[in-house]
Amino acid sequence: MNKTITISIDVMGGDNGVDVILAGAALALKRMPHTKFLLFGKQELIEPVLATHTALADVSEVVHCDIAVAMDAKPSMALRQGRYKSSMWRAIEAVKDGRAGVCVSAGNTGALMAMSRFCLRSMPGVERPAIAAIWPTMRGDSIVLDMGATIGADAKQLVSFSMMGGAMARALFSIKRPTVGLLNVGVEEIKGVEYVREAGRILKEADFPFCKYIGFVEGDDIGKGTADVVVTEGFSGNIALKTAEGTARQIAIYLRESISRSLMARIGYVFARGAFNRLKDKMDPSKSNGGVFLGLNGLVIKSHGSADPEGFASAIGLGEAMTRNGLLQKLSDDMTQFQAMLSSEQESKE
Amino acid sequence: MNKTITISIDVMGGDNGVDVILAGAALALKRMPHTKFLLFGKQELIEPVLATHTALADVSEVVHCDIAVAMDAKPSMALRQGRYKSSMWRAIEAVKDGRAGVCVSAGNTGALMAMSRFCLRSMPGVERPAIAAIWPTMRGDSIVLDMGATIGADAKQLVSFSMMGGAMARALFSIKRPTVGLLNVGVEEIKGVEYVREAGRILKEADFPFCKYIGFVEGDDIGKGTADVVVTEGFSGNIALKTAEGTARQIAIYLRESISRSLMARIGYVFARGAFNRLKDKMDPSKSNGGVFLGLNGLVIKSHGSADPEGFASAIGLGEAMTRNGLLQKLSDDMTQFQAMLSSEQESKE
Repeated sequence: MNKTITISIDVMGGDNGVDVILAGAALALKRMPHTKFLLFGKQELIEPVLATHTALADVSEVVHCDIAVAMDAKPSMALRQGRYKSSMWRAIEAVKDGRAGVCVSAGNTGALMAMSRFCLRSMPGVERPAIAAIWPTMRGDSIVLDMGATIGADAKQLVSFSMMGGAMARALFSIKRPTVGLLNVGVEEIKGVEYVREAGRILKEADFPFCKYIGFVEGDDIGKGTADVVVTEGFSGNIALKTAEGTARQIAIYLRESISRSLMARIGYVFARGAFNRLKDKMDPSKSNGGVFLGLNGLVIKSHGSADPEGFASAIGLGEAMTRNGLLQKLSDDMTQFQAMLSSEQESKE
Repeated sequence: MNKTITISIDVMGGDNGVDVILAGAALALKRMPHTKFLLFGKQELIEPVLATHTALADVSEVVHCDIAVAMDAKPSMALRQGRYKSSMWRAIEAVKDGRAGVCVSAGNTGALMAMSRFCLRSMPGVERPAIAAIWPTMRGDSIVLDMGATIGADAKQLVSFSMMGGAMARALFSIKRPTVGLLNVGVEEIKGVEYVREAGRILKEADFPFCKYIGFVEGDDIGKGTADVVVTEGFSGNIALKTAEGTARQIAIYLRESISRSLMARIGYVFARGAFNRLKDKMDPSKSNGGVFLGLNGLVIKSHGSADPEGFASAIGLGEAMTRNGLLQKLSDDMTQFQAMLSSEQESKE
């Protein structure tokens, strides 16, 4: 029943070094004992740290790579210098070769996407990959995409994002027919950005068995959990995500300041500590860490560069869950079905 | 010194009726005694309510209008049916005729923008108006625009938004040379959306005396207060604003739930009540209510449709402050200077 999943890790990615990446992997292993690891990076840096995580060492294979992609490298430069030999490339390649079910990296997003596209290629029927994020909402988690894999999109791409997000929701949340909303603006004059409206028309008409289109949603609907999957193009998606993160951080700071300001408030805090910890837990960004690259012939997860071990472990957990639940197969089935629908429609028109 | 400012109000706009609008105006008058009001709307609805606000009645003139623009009217339809005669139109017209310094409406955003453009026309040099919002940040308030007056923008429009936002910051915050950042995404691959990069180049080269360009900012920089003015096109701006509002509301609900869950937490709350009230105050959206239409030959403020009297009063307060501080004159001076720079550049190139 519990087959072992192999996870390939770019140990050189991230702002916080090998220690944090391996501590994250060790934590993930503790939670998910049916995992094995392929660790790509500089042997001389990995070995001494790995020696301190004996359980992890037992299920890991270290693959030495001389080259590490810098966090600030331009994607084109990273691709030129790191292709075929960097720890990032080789971690992705392990997914391509079937040696790993998913690759996790906290490295440079642009380089990771460029290499993933180059190495894994897009799924049949997918023009552009997307980055999906898990978004904590009032009704549990939702999926929001694209978080910035590409800028701009046309109607067909938004439809394909909807299917990708839908497949991910089915793999992660065990919902048979996830609801999908298209992010739009509420100012009446311009309610209909044309390509978003067109995407809405396609989704409504197609009435996919694998996702249920519920119409337009606005920025504040994301946090309400109005839809299981919220779809938008990369520029606005990235801005929405970062703005929400910024707002949450801002409020957390206000809260801390308000409480430390007076003795009465500090006394109150002592009593309410449990409540605050629950709140902190709910607002903890590391609990929902991990951007999922969707639409490629293989699974790659981007962890926040600054993730702590908890954050990195949750990115690994996300990858493990999607691999175990067969995300890629689900998505590929959907895409095939969609292509068939499109071509039969085309024929009936001709 | 304290000259009287006349404010024209579309009393028929908003979700909550005449009562709330007039209570808001009465509250605003209390705070800003040097104001007078022109109240546009149905006399039979206004008079009885106004009679209960004697101070407001003393400084108000009621102008009867038969027609009210519905909250869900399409802008084109509103314009066709309400032009020249609706309360919304006539409130805007009062600004055009110089009888009022600013118009405030809680009505239909699309209709208000369509009528404002039609009635007031764009300032010389401005291709498109924008809607600017006040955004509470860790370093005081910032201005963010465009919140959705139009979708998409080119480099020149972003530059003109920067100048509009800069003029507003000077009028509101008494900063001589406000900092301006262009909203962009941080994913390395696509850091340079071309029209945003181009706008950055223009702003950097121009090195305006009236605003200081500081480069790209990301979604989480808005709440940090990295720039006094954050500029983006309307789609992403609207989504950023609504997402931030949604996140704040979500956290407020979490907080309430966490506290009401246990006796200890409720006891803690009693002690920390002052701190919570301060926090609530800081997070209160009605304190920063009011979208400012910039780039027209006259000032129009859009209040949230669902604003309470406090919210509507703060939209009036915003309009009053900008009128008193000569926003329009400042902006028109800047635009003239910018046009002169552009044409001298053009000449030197020829």
